[in-house]
Amino acid sequence: MARSITSGNKSTRSETDSFGPIDVPADRYWGAQTERSRQNFKIGQDRMPIAVVHALGLVKLAAAQTNRELGLLDARRAGAIIRAAREVIEGKLDDHFPLVVWQTGSGTQTNMNLNEVIANRANQMLGGELGAKKPVHPNDHVNMSQSSNDSFPTAMHIAAAGRIVADLIPALDGLHRELRKKEKAFAKIVKIGRTHTQDATPLTLGQEFSGYAAQVESGIARLRTAVKELFPLAQGGTAVGTGLNSKPKFAKLFARHVANIAKLPFTSAPNKFEALASNDAYVLVHGAINSVATGLFKIANDIRLLGSGPRSGLGELILPENEPGSSIMPGKVNPTQCEAMTMVCCQVFGNQTAVTVAGSQGHFELNVYKPVLAYCMMHSIQLLSDAARSFTEHCVVGIRADEKRIRELMERSLMLVTALAPKIGYDNAAKVAKSAHARGTTLKEEAVRLGFVNAAEFERLVQPDKMTHPG
Amino acid sequence: MARSITSGNKSTRSETDSFGPIDVPADRYWGAQTERSRQNFKIGQDRMPIAVVHALGLVKLAAAQTNRELGLLDARRAGAIIRAAREVIEGKLDDHFPLVVWQTGSGTQTNMNLNEVIANRANQMLGGELGAKKPVHPNDHVNMSQSSNDSFPTAMHIAAAGRIVADLIPALDGLHRELRKKEKAFAKIVKIGRTHTQDATPLTLGQEFSGYAAQVESGIARLRTAVKELFPLAQGGTAVGTGLNSKPKFAKLFARHVANIAKLPFTSAPNKFEALASNDAYVLVHGAINSVATGLFKIANDIRLLGSGPRSGLGELILPENEPGSSIMPGKVNPTQCEAMTMVCCQVFGNQTAVTVAGSQGHFELNVYKPVLAYCMMHSIQLLSDAARSFTEHCVVGIRADEKRIRELMERSLMLVTALAPKIGYDNAAKVAKSAHARGTTLKEEAVRLGFVNAAEFERLVQPDKMTHPG
Amino acid sequence: MARSITSGNKSTRSETDSFGPIDVPADRYWGAQTERSRQNFKIGQDRMPIAVVHALGLVKLAAAQTNRELGLLDARRAGAIIRAAREVIEGKLDDHFPLVVWQTGSGTQTNMNLNEVIANRANQMLGGELGAKKPVHPNDHVNMSQSSNDSFPTAMHIAAAGRIVADLIPALDGLHRELRKKEKAFAKIVKIGRTHTQDATPLTLGQEFSGYAAQVESGIARLRTAVKELFPLAQGGTAVGTGLNSKPKFAKLFARHVANIAKLPFTSAPNKFEALASNDAYVLVHGAINSVATGLFKIANDIRLLGSGPRSGLGELILPENEPGSSIMPGKVNPTQCEAMTMVCCQVFGNQTAVTVAGSQGHFELNVYKPVLAYCMMHSIQLLSDAARSFTEHCVVGIRADEKRIRELMERSLMLVTALAPKIGYDNAAKVAKSAHARGTTLKEEAVRLGFVNAAEFERLVQPDKMTHPG
Amino acid sequence: MARSITSGNKSTRSETDSFGPIDVPADRYWGAQTERSRQNFKIGQDRMPIAVVHALGLVKLAAAQTNRELGLLDARRAGAIIRAAREVIEGKLDDHFPLVVWQTGSGTQTNMNLNEVIANRANQMLGGELGAKKPVHPNDHVNMSQSSNDSFPTAMHIAAAGRIVADLIPALDGLHRELRKKEKAFAKIVKIGRTHTQDATPLTLGQEFSGYAAQVESGIARLRTAVKELFPLAQGGTAVGTGLNSKPKFAKLFARHVANIAKLPFTSAPNKFEALASNDAYVLVHGAINSVATGLFKIANDIRLLGSGPRSGLGELILPENEPGSSIMPGKVNPTQCEAMTMVCCQVFGNQTAVTVAGSQGHFELNVYKPVLAYCMMHSIQLLSDAARSFTEHCVVGIRADEKRIRELMERSLMLVTALAPKIGYDNAAKVAKSAHARGTTLKEEAVRLGFVNAAEFERLVQPDKMTHPG
Repeated sequence: MARSITSGNKSTRSETDSFGPIDVPADRYWGAQTERSRQNFKIGQDRMPIAVVHALGLVKLAAAQTNRELGLLDARRAGAIIRAAREVIEGKLDDHFPLVVWQTGSGTQTNMNLNEVIANRANQMLGGELGAKKPVHPNDHVNMSQSSNDSFPTAMHIAAAGRIVADLIPALDGLHRELRKKEKAFAKIVKIGRTHTQDATPLTLGQEFSGYAAQVESGIARLRTAVKELFPLAQGGTAVGTGLNSKPKFAKLFARHVANIAKLPFTSAPNKFEALASNDAYVLVHGAINSVATGLFKIANDIRLLGSGPRSGLGELILPENEPGSSIMPGKVNPTQCEAMTMVCCQVFGNQTAVTVAGSQGHFELNVYKPVLAYCMMHSIQLLSDAARSFTEHCVVGIRADEKRIRELMERSLMLVTALAPKIGYDNAAKVAKSAHARGTTLKEEAVRLGFVNAAEFERLVQPDKMTHPG
Repeated sequence: MARSITSGNKSTRSETDSFGPIDVPADRYWGAQTERSRQNFKIGQDRMPIAVVHALGLVKLAAAQTNRELGLLDARRAGAIIRAAREVIEGKLDDHFPLVVWQTGSGTQTNMNLNEVIANRANQMLGGELGAKKPVHPNDHVNMSQSSNDSFPTAMHIAAAGRIVADLIPALDGLHRELRKKEKAFAKIVKIGRTHTQDATPLTLGQEFSGYAAQVESGIARLRTAVKELFPLAQGGTAVGTGLNSKPKFAKLFARHVANIAKLPFTSAPNKFEALASNDAYVLVHGAINSVATGLFKIANDIRLLGSGPRSGLGELILPENEPGSSIMPGKVNPTQCEAMTMVCCQVFGNQTAVTVAGSQGHFELNVYKPVLAYCMMHSIQLLSDAARSFTEHCVVGIRADEKRIRELMERSLMLVTALAPKIGYDNAAKVAKSAHARGTTLKEEAVRLGFVNAAEFERLVQPDKMTHPG
Repeated sequence: MARSITSGNKSTRSETDSFGPIDVPADRYWGAQTERSRQNFKIGQDRMPIAVVHALGLVKLAAAQTNRELGLLDARRAGAIIRAAREVIEGKLDDHFPLVVWQTGSGTQTNMNLNEVIANRANQMLGGELGAKKPVHPNDHVNMSQSSNDSFPTAMHIAAAGRIVADLIPALDGLHRELRKKEKAFAKIVKIGRTHTQDATPLTLGQEFSGYAAQVESGIARLRTAVKELFPLAQGGTAVGTGLNSKPKFAKLFARHVANIAKLPFTSAPNKFEALASNDAYVLVHGAINSVATGLFKIANDIRLLGSGPRSGLGELILPENEPGSSIMPGKVNPTQCEAMTMVCCQVFGNQTAVTVAGSQGHFELNVYKPVLAYCMMHSIQLLSDAARSFTEHCVVGIRADEKRIRELMERSLMLVTALAPKIGYDNAAKVAKSAHARGTTLKEEAVRLGFVNAAEFERLVQPDKMTHPG
Repeated sequence: MARSITSGNKSTRSETDSFGPIDVPADRYWGAQTERSRQNFKIGQDRMPIAVVHALGLVKLAAAQTNRELGLLDARRAGAIIRAAREVIEGKLDDHFPLVVWQTGSGTQTNMNLNEVIANRANQMLGGELGAKKPVHPNDHVNMSQSSNDSFPTAMHIAAAGRIVADLIPALDGLHRELRKKEKAFAKIVKIGRTHTQDATPLTLGQEFSGYAAQVESGIARLRTAVKELFPLAQGGTAVGTGLNSKPKFAKLFARHVANIAKLPFTSAPNKFEALASNDAYVLVHGAINSVATGLFKIANDIRLLGSGPRSGLGELILPENEPGSSIMPGKVNPTQCEAMTMVCCQVFGNQTAVTVAGSQGHFELNVYKPVLAYCMMHSIQLLSDAARSFTEHCVVGIRADEKRIRELMERSLMLVTALAPKIGYDNAAKVAKSAHARGTTLKEEAVRLGFVNAAEFERLVQPDKMTHPG
C-alpha cells in the first residue's frame, strides 16, 4: 500500500537538483532527479524490479547504521533515515518508485529515487518540508559514504541472492520432493526405456522419475554453490573503487549490517575495482539458473510426451486435467503446465544471452549495463520460481501412471533382446531382433527358431523386471 | 478506462465451462476459462501484450463480419459481437484481460478470454445476463469458424505488423531524419578517422554521421521487407490446418476484412498447416529487428565514446546534458541515452535467442510456444521504438561538435601519411610515420628529412580536407 | 592441390615488411606479414574459411582488371596478378593460406596473405624472385586502390552470397522437392492430428508433409530476399570509407567486374562509411538462415517422433535404416539423420548469437569483428547445406507410411467429436468426448446414448476423410 | 603420426556389421560402422574433437582393466585392448578417427569407431586378421559392460575436465600473473578514473589493473568450482541407466581406474538415469566458461581503448607492436591481440547458446545432442586457452604506461571536485564543477571564486594521490 502524503491543494510541488527546479506530483515522495528520469526515459513498461528497490532500501538502512556508528551521521537523521528505509523494505512505499529499467546504466536514477524518497519521508517524519532537503539531504545524508556505483551493484547482489534463497530454491525443493514421491510410488512399474525416441531396454517408471528428481536436486546444489558468488558486496568502493568519501572501516561494517538484516553471509568484496567494473558474478549465477532451466525444460517436455494421447500417443502417464484445452475441439485436455514451463525456460535462455552480452560490456571503472542485468536476473528468478511451483502443484502432484498401457508397450519391445547379448553375442542377438521386426513375431519365437537358445533359457535370461535391476 | 459492469451486491458471480462452475469477480466480463487460467498460472507479472489482445479483438470483429456474410451468424448476434469487439480494439475493456503470458502454449486461454469477454459484453448489450452464454455463446458464436490455433497466430501477425509499421518504423524514421540533419550540419568538419580504435585517415564528421544515417535507413528498409512475412494469416486453418468447422470461403473473406480494418495488405496464408505448426515467419521478422538493434548499438556506443570527456576523453562531440549524472560526483553528466539504448539492444539480443528456441520447438500440427513468441516480439518492438524516440529527442537532436578539439586531434595524426603512399610507396610512407612516431615529430619534418618529398610536395599531397573527398 | 614452389636446398627464405625481415617456409608463397600472424595468433584450429580466401582472390582479380582499365596498373603486372588470382580462385593455392580466424579483427592479415601470395606467385610467373616484391609489390600493386577495410568485407559478401546461392538454396530445393513428393504420395492417408502432443482432429499425412514442404519453400524465399542485402559491396571505401588512394570510378567498375565473374548482381554500396563500420547486413542474412534452421529443426524433430517405435512409439512413419543404432542393444535403429540435423541447427542458433554480438561491436570507422562474422556465417551455410542434403538423401527420400498403424490410431481418436460441434454445440460435444474417455467407449456410443444424435446422423457427420477437406 | 597398417596390394578390405559387409580403406583400422557413418554423414568439416577421442580411449582402457578384474575378460584380450587403447590416448592413431561431429546424437558412431579401431589394432597385435573381429570383438570385448550411452558422456566429462584443468586454468593463471605484475609496476601512477566513459575521480593505474587481475582470479576460482560437476561419470548406466549387461561393481571400479589414470577425482555418478538423460552439468560448466569470457572481453576491450591513439585517442597505455596494422595506411599498428580475444569471446557466447539449446533437448532416457555439446565445449576451452596465452604473451607482458599522458589527463579532470563534497556539500561542489566546465577554468579557481574554500583548503582537500587511497 502506498503511504499517502499530506499535501495541500496543489497537485505538484517543486523539487530541485543541480539542474534547477522541476515540478513533481504532490502526492509522491520522489524528487527532481527521479522526475527527470521519468520524463527523459519513456521506454517500455518494465519498472525496475521491486526486489532491487527493496534491496536498495536495505542498503540505505545499513549505510545509515554504519555512518552513525562511524560518527558521521547524527542519531536524529540516522534514525529517520532508518525508519524511512524500513518502510521501503516493507513495501509500504512501492508506489514512489516509478522508474523503468531503461535508464542510466549505473542505476544512478533509481539510487537517487531511493535517496529522494527516503530523504523526503525522513524529513516529513522530522517535521520538515518536502523538497527542502533538510534536515536530511538526499545526497549528503541518505547517500552518505556511497555512490550509485557501489550501492546499485550491492543491491543487485542482495536482491538476487535473497530471491534465489527465499524463492527459487524452495520452489525447486517443492518440485524435488514431489518427484521423489513419484519415484517411490512408481518404483515397481516396469516400462520400456526409450533412447533416440526408439524402444530400448526396460527400466522402472520410478527410475525414470529418479532421474528427473536427481536433475532438480543437482540444480538446487548448483544454485547453492553459485549464490555464494553474490555474497561479496561492492559497497565501499564509492565512485570508482577507491572508496573516496567513505571511511576505510565503512565497507566491512556495512557488510556486517547487511548480513544481519538479510540473514545471509554477505561480506565486503575483496577488490572493489572488480566489483564495480565487472558483473561476471552475475553472469556466472545466471549461468547456473540457466542450467536449472535446461533441466526443467527436459523434464517438462518428457512428461508432456509420456502423457501424450489420450488414445493415439504414448499414453504412459495420465496428467491432471485443469481446464478445457481447446476453443474448437470439445473435451480436449492439454499439458498446459508443461507448456508454461518450457516457455518460461525459453525466456530464461534468452535472458542468458542478454546477461552475457551486458556482462561483457561497459568501459573502464564501471559496467553501465547494470539495470538490464538486474532486470533479466530477477525476471528469470521469478519466472522459474513461479513456474516450478505451478508445475509442481498443477501437474506433478497429480500425475498417475497408466499401468495397463505401460505393460502393453513394454512387453512388445524388441530391445529385451539386449539381455541375450552377453550369452549369444551382439551379432546373433541383432539377428534375432531384426528377424522378429521383419516377420512381426516375438523375440522368443525367433531366438528359438534361429537356434540360439531354447525356450527355457529365453525365459530365464529375458526378464524385464530383472533387467531393470541387473546384478 | 475499464468499462464498469452493473452488478448487484455480490462480489462474484458464477460462470461455467465444460469443467463445471467457478466464481469470477462480479465486475469483470471474463468467464470460467479465463478464471481457471488466472488460478492455474500464477507465473510472473508479464501480462499478455495488450497489442495482442487488441489484435484478437480485431480477429473477433472480422470473424463476426465474415460469419454474417456467409449466413452463419444472424445480424443481431453479429452486431453485438462487432460492437463489443470494437470496444476491445479501442482499449475500453483492457482491465478485463488479466492473463499472463505463461499459460497454455497455444494462447487458447487468452483466446477464450476474448470469447468470454465479448460474449458477456454482447449479451449485456442485448439485455442478457452475464454468464448465461446467451444469446451469444463464447465458443459457438464469438469463436465461430475459428480455433485458438488459427486465431492466436493471426493476432500475433496483426499485432506485430501493426506495431512495426505504426510505431517502430516511424520511430526509426525520426532518428534517421535527425542523423541526416547532423550529416549536413557537420559536412565541413574534417576529423581524424579511427579504425581498430587507432588513428586512421581523415573523414568529415558529416561522413561519419552519414554512415549512421545509412545504417538506420538500411534497417528501415529491412523492416519494410521483413514485415511482409507477417501479412499471410493463419485464420481459416481452425484446429489443425484443415479448416474443419469453417467454410471454404471463410479464410479469404476474413483476411480481406482484416486488411480493410488494419489498413495493411493482409492475405490468407497459402498453407494453413505451415501457418499453425510453424512460426518461422516470426523468427525471420525478429531477426530483422535484431539486425536493426545491432546497428543502433554501434551508433549509440560510438556516440558515447566520441562524446567522452569532458576533459580526458575523445571529446569530439558534446552531448546534451539532461540530468545530474552521479550521486557522489558533483557536476558529472553522463551519456545516459546511449546507455538506455544499448541496454535495450541487449534485451533484444536476448529476445532473439528466446524467439529462436521457441520457434524451433512445438510438435506436429501446432507450435505451442506462441505466447512467449508474441511476448518477446512485442517487447522488442516497443523497447526499440521507445528507445529510438528517446535517443533521438534527448540525445541526437542536441549533439554539437567541438570543432576546436576535432581540429586539434586531426592535425596531430600520423595517418595523414597515407596520402603519400601512392607517390613514395607503402614501405617508404611507413618509414615516415614510424619515424615521426618514434621521434615525436611531424610527418612533414620526417618526410623531408628522409628525402622522400620536399616541403611543397608534402603540402600539395597531404591536405586533410582533400583526403576526405579524393578524386 | 598446392602448387609446388621451386626452391633451393634451404627450408626457409627471408621476407620483409615494415617490421623488418622474417623467415618463412621456402615452399610457401606467403610473405612476412602472413608469417607474423602465424606466429602471433596460435589460437585454435579454425582456418579462415576457404570460401573467403577464394572470394578475396576474386577481389584481387577484379581490382587488377579495374586498375588496368583506369590506367593505374600496367598490363604486364595486371596480367600476372590476374593469372595468380585465378589460381587462388580455382583452389590451386589453398595450402598457402595458413591463417586462422582468430587474428586481427579487420582481416588485414588474411588480406595481406592474399597480397603476398599473389605477388610472389605473379613475380615467379614474371621471372622475379620470391620475397623481392618486384616487379609486383603486394601493397602497391596487388592491393592497389584497396584497403583490407574494404576488401575483406567485400570478400565476406561475395563468399556468403555465393555459397547461399550455389549451395544452400539448391540443397534446400532438393529437400523441398522430396517433401513435395511425399505430400503427393501420402495424399490419401488420413491420420490423427496432434496439437499440444494431444489427439486432435484428422488430417492427411500428405497435408502434414505439405506443411513441411511449405516451411522449406518459405525458407528458400526468405533466403532469396535476404541474400540481396549482400550484393552492395564495400570496395572503394578503402581505409575509412572516403575512398582515399582509389579513383572515384574504381568502386563501380570493380563491382561490375565482380558481378560478371561471380554471375550475381553485385553493386557498389551506396554508403561506404556504413559498409566498413557496420555489418548489419550480415546480421540480417544470418537471421534469415537462422529462421530456416528453426524450420528444419521442427521438421526433423517431428519426423523422429512420428517414426518413434518400432513397437512402442507413435510409429506412423517408417524411417530408412542406415546403420546399426546401438553398441549394446542389438538390432536397434535410430533416427540419426534427424539427430544430425537438429544438432546442426543448435550450432546455427549459437552462431546467431555470436554474429549478433559481433555485429553490434566495433568502434568508429570499422567493425573489427569481421573474421568471426565470416567464420560463423560460412559455418552455418555449410552445415545447413550439407545437413539438408544428407537428411534428404538418407532420410526423407526413404520415408514410408505405416498405413495400418496410422488408421488404427486415427480411428480411436476422440477428437472426431469436433465434427459434431456445429450441430450439437461445443458444450454437448464436450460431454460426448469426456464421457467416452471416462467410460472407455466410442464417440458414437456416447453421442447416441446421450441423445444428441442418432446413429445415422453420427455416421453422416463424423467422416474422418471429409474432416480433412471440409467444405 | 598415424601408425601404418601392413596391408596387401588392395586399397580396401571388407568389414561387416549387422547391416552386412562394406569396404573400408585398407590402411585404416576402422570398421563397418565407422565407414557407414563416414558415408552417411557428409556434413561439414568439424571432426569429433580429438580430446574426446583420446578420452574415449581412456574409457576403453579403464573398462578393459575393470572387466579383467571382474573376471569378465581374459588377460590376453584385456592386455591387447589396453595396449591399443594406450596408443589411442597417446595420439598415435589419430588418423583412424575420421568421423565428424554431425552424426548420431549419442556419439554411438564415434564410440564404435573406438571399438573398431581398438579391436582391429588389438587383433593385429595378437596375430589376428583385420576385420575378423577375433579374438577381440569390438562390441563383445572392447565395448564390454558399456553402451555408447554411458561411454560417450563419460568421455565428454573426462575430456572437458582434463582440458580445463590442464589447459584453460594454467593459461588463465599465466594471464593473472602478468596482470598482477602490471598492478605492482603501475602502483604509483595516478590517473583519471572513468565511469560511463566520462571523467571520474582518480585511481592508480595499478588499481585499475588490480581489477582486471581480480576478474581473472575470480574466473579461475569459478572454473575450479564448476569443474567438480564433471567428476561424476555416467559409466555403468549402459543403455538406459539401469546398468544392464554390466556388473554392479563395474561403475565404481571403473571410475577409480579413470581417476588414477587421469589424476583427477572422478567418481561414479550417483544417479545414472540423470547422467544419461541430461547434460545439465555441461550447461553449468559452459556457463562458468562463459562468465570467464565476459570478463576477458571487458579487459581486452578496456586495454584497446586505453591504448587508443597513438596521437588522437586516450593513449594512456602503449601496447606492444607486433605486426603492421594496415595494408593501406603505412605505419599503423593495431591492438590485434585484443581483437582476437574479443572475437574468441563472441564465439564462446555463441557456443553458450548452442550448449543451452542442446542441453534442453533430447527425449526420455537419453539426451541425443551429445556431439554438439562436446564440440562446443571443447571449442570454447581451446579458444579461450589459446587466446589467453596469446593475449598474455603478445599483449599484456609488453604493456607500458605513458605516464606523461596519464598525468596530463588526470590533472585536467573536473571530477577532483568530489573530494570537496564532504566539506562543502554535493550541491555546492556541483556548482564549482559546472562553473569550471562552462568557463574553461580550473576547479581551484572556481572554488575560491565562489567562496566555498580558500586556496590552501583546496590544496589540502584535493590531492589526487590521496584520493586514490582515502582514509
